[in-house]
Amino acid sequence: MTSTDPRPIGVFDSGVGGLTVLRALRRRFPHESMLYLGDTARVPYGTKSAEVVTRYSLRNAAFLAGRDIKLLVVACNTSSAVALPALRATLGVPVLGVIEPGARAALRRTRSGVLGVIGTPGTIASGAYQRALAAERPGIQIHARACPLFVPLAEEGWVEGDVPRLVAREYLAPLRQAGIDTLVLGCTHYPLLKGVVAEALGPAVELVDSAEATADEVGTLLEAGTVGRGDGSGLHLYVTDLPQRMPELSTRFLGERIDAAEQVDI
Amino acid sequence: MTSTDPRPIGVFDSGVGGLTVLRALRRRFPHESMLYLGDTARVPYGTKSAEVVTRYSLRNAAFLAGRDIKLLVVACNTSSAVALPALRATLGVPVLGVIEPGARAALRRTRSGVLGVIGTPGTIASGAYQRALAAERPGIQIHARACPLFVPLAEEGWVEGDVPRLVAREYLAPLRQAGIDTLVLGCTHYPLLKGVVAEALGPAVELVDSAEATADEVGTLLEAGTVGRGDGSGLHLYVTDLPQRMPELSTRFLGERIDAAEQVDI
Repeated sequence: MTSTDPRPIGVFDSGVGGLTVLRALRRRFPHESMLYLGDTARVPYGTKSAEVVTRYSLRNAAFLAGRDIKLLVVACNTSSAVALPALRATLGVPVLGVIEPGARAALRRTRSGVLGVIGTPGTIASGAYQRALAAERPGIQIHARACPLFVPLAEEGWVEGDVPRLVAREYLAPLRQAGIDTLVLGCTHYPLLKGVVAEALGPAVELVDSAEATADEVGTLLEAGTVGRGDGSGLHLYVTDLPQRMPELSTRFLGERIDAAEQVDI
Repeated sequence: MTSTDPRPIGVFDSGVGGLTVLRALRRRFPHESMLYLGDTARVPYGTKSAEVVTRYSLRNAAFLAGRDIKLLVVACNTSSAVALPALRATLGVPVLGVIEPGARAALRRTRSGVLGVIGTPGTIASGAYQRALAAERPGIQIHARACPLFVPLAEEGWVEGDVPRLVAREYLAPLRQAGIDTLVLGCTHYPLLKGVVAEALGPAVELVDSAEATADEVGTLLEAGTVGRGDGSGLHLYVTDLPQRMPELSTRFLGERIDAAEQVDI
């Protein structure tokens, strides 16, 4: 027996990458209303310091909290890596990041215990995935690698062909040599590059998509009644810079064409 | 007969790319003091709207004006493309961008009158180079192309080898086919990729580096006495995010290793 709660689920990201998380949530929970905030004026977070990322994350969360959300999903890996404690300390609703769900899903899949994680320089340098994995299963072997060119490749739409294939091969060669059997895609943009990543690693390596893993855990919260179930299906998108490329980028990242995103100054 | 003026020249950029402009200035004017501000917390500007870029540019300029500069060099192409009128309207000292110097240098070099310009999406979409070129010589033929992957490639240090070569070939193929004889490198990061750009276009195409062209025009202002000559050689770097990678990036972009940049919150 779970109570209902018509308030929306809030999702924020540094930009449009988090739309892959929103996509997983929309597909899984068609009866939940959702608000998405993309901090497109300050994107990317992945190359910024923990201090600056935390400051921006708190502002994003306060904006969504002001719109009466029942759950905050931090779709940005870099924010999840550095800002969760600060967010949990200040928000009155449950806060879910993408890192712990991704780490837990990877541990359920690996057979050899030799895992890889890829992400932005900020996420990898924070050591957050490495810590989350080691905390859940001490003694696990983790190989981490920052792949800074993957985000611009995904945003440019260069997700197949020679350039992304070569870039993936270059970045992933050390992970392949280390003999990983599972790879966490630790950045919301990376699912778009699944094809070339899988090709560079070979068929024996399983890819874990943090967006899907996070949607799984939202499901757990709804089933457990920690968060009440919704009864709508509304979606509202906010961005902090002009939403010029939104129709194109929403089609690519969300899988739905959104013509109107509301620009807000926060 | 020119008067002297010991105040520093101020230079700002969205990040570290403008260090290539600072490098050209330092090499040419060893007796000038300089202040550099890199807005590394908000980098990149190239994908942001004109409104947001203008807001950030005004803040950067106000910060440097507060440190008593005698001349402002806007080293960022995107800022130069959209924010110069606002900057000139509010600042009490001369303001020089990188676009007009680059455009004028290109017009001095071209023989065929068929020119190319490459830059960030923001710079190219603004049409600023295209306007500057057409204003100085009506009837000129201009082929413009945004190259969003060049900045992350330069920052990653991937400036030679298969990946940048393939990316350059892909971006520049239409310019090569259009038969340009001169190409403006309309982004401060691009001089680092000169090798692969030259290779993709062939030896008949001349490359114009806006950083060098801008240093030429600063020389003109100093010679004309519009700006008094300095008598020091000081250099101070400010950044808006933690200056973690400064030793590495200053070596690559400035050609001098700077260990200490001062972090400021503006």
